[in-house]
Amino acid sequence: MSTAVQQNLVSKNEQYASKFTEGNLQSPPAKKYAVVTCMDARIDPAAAYGISLGDAHVIRNAGGNARDALRSLVISEQLLGTTEILLIKHTGCGMLTFKNEDAHAVVEKNLGAEAKRDLAGLDFQPFPHLEQAVEDDVNYLKAHKAIPDSVKISGWIYEVESGKVRSVV
Amino acid sequence: MSTAVQQNLVSKNEQYASKFTEGNLQSPPAKKYAVVTCMDARIDPAAAYGISLGDAHVIRNAGGNARDALRSLVISEQLLGTTEILLIKHTGCGMLTFKNEDAHAVVEKNLGAEAKRDLAGLDFQPFPHLEQAVEDDVNYLKAHKAIPDSVKISGWIYEVESGKVRSVV
Ligand SMILES: [Zn+2]
Ligand SMILES: [Zn+2]
Repeated sequence: MSTAVQQNLVSKNEQYASKFTEGNLQSPPAKKYAVVTCMDARIDPAAAYGISLGDAHVIRNAGGNARDALRSLVISEQLLGTTEILLIKHTGCGMLTFKNEDAHAVVEKNLGAEAKRDLAGLDFQPFPHLEQAVEDDVNYLKAHKAIPDSVKISGWIYEVESGKVRSVV
Repeated sequence: MSTAVQQNLVSKNEQYASKFTEGNLQSPPAKKYAVVTCMDARIDPAAAYGISLGDAHVIRNAGGNARDALRSLVISEQLLGTTEILLIKHTGCGMLTFKNEDAHAVVEKNLGAEAKRDLAGLDFQPFPHLEQAVEDDVNYLKAHKAIPDSVKISGWIYEVESGKVRSVV
């Protein structure tokens, strides 16, 4: 039996597909850039960051984390020709609200010792300071040998309260 | 000096923010679900999958890979209360076009032995068969101890040529 979430996907997608006219776009991003941002439900990257269909890779994870995005970024640049990265974290991010040990404790409480053990090596990558986290992630990417110096990298913050983006680094 | 990509972000975001009225949305997704899909430039998840602002976490990486998404999914479910996952891969995915050794060879050719060495342990997670990859990722998540059985998981394929989504598992 399909869920309400699945039914929403199917019915909204039918409407989308019925008006779809962009089936000839190519795989390599037309504007040759990649965006790394948070999975947060309050962010619509295409609308908020002005990304037209086909223009950019969009990588999203908890926190807009650069380490988590490394595999995708190397593929984006080395195999699909992108040459610029926008790293965009945001105000009100859940990653500001807990520490690694808190997350592991919640897993153990909800799911038991076995689940906690299976995640023993996992760094959930929370961060205590937003601006600093943007700088740290940009520096991590700039220093990484697999991201060449020719790749332009900038760091930004999106404000979920105002819809505004501001430059950090 | 700002790049054309950065200027596009700033100017398009100014337009977006000037009409923004959804600054009071909460962090936990209103419809309590998470979507895992590819970073591919031809996918606009909000539009194609019918996700309204605030409704769902959207996790994107090269291939819509479940292993890569695990950290984000555990945070989504254990800390932010989501209870359902839509895993959506797509036709024409770049991950169908190479093998791990190809990617490592490209890195070495473009960036040198040091970069290749720094990525020595990296599985780029390509896949040879699309439907099978959807099934494998759904099975991986269903079997994982940190994703409880109460989480509903389904697998889908988005067709970049037609804009249509179809159910796999
Ligand atoms: Zn966030
Ligand atoms: Zn793809």
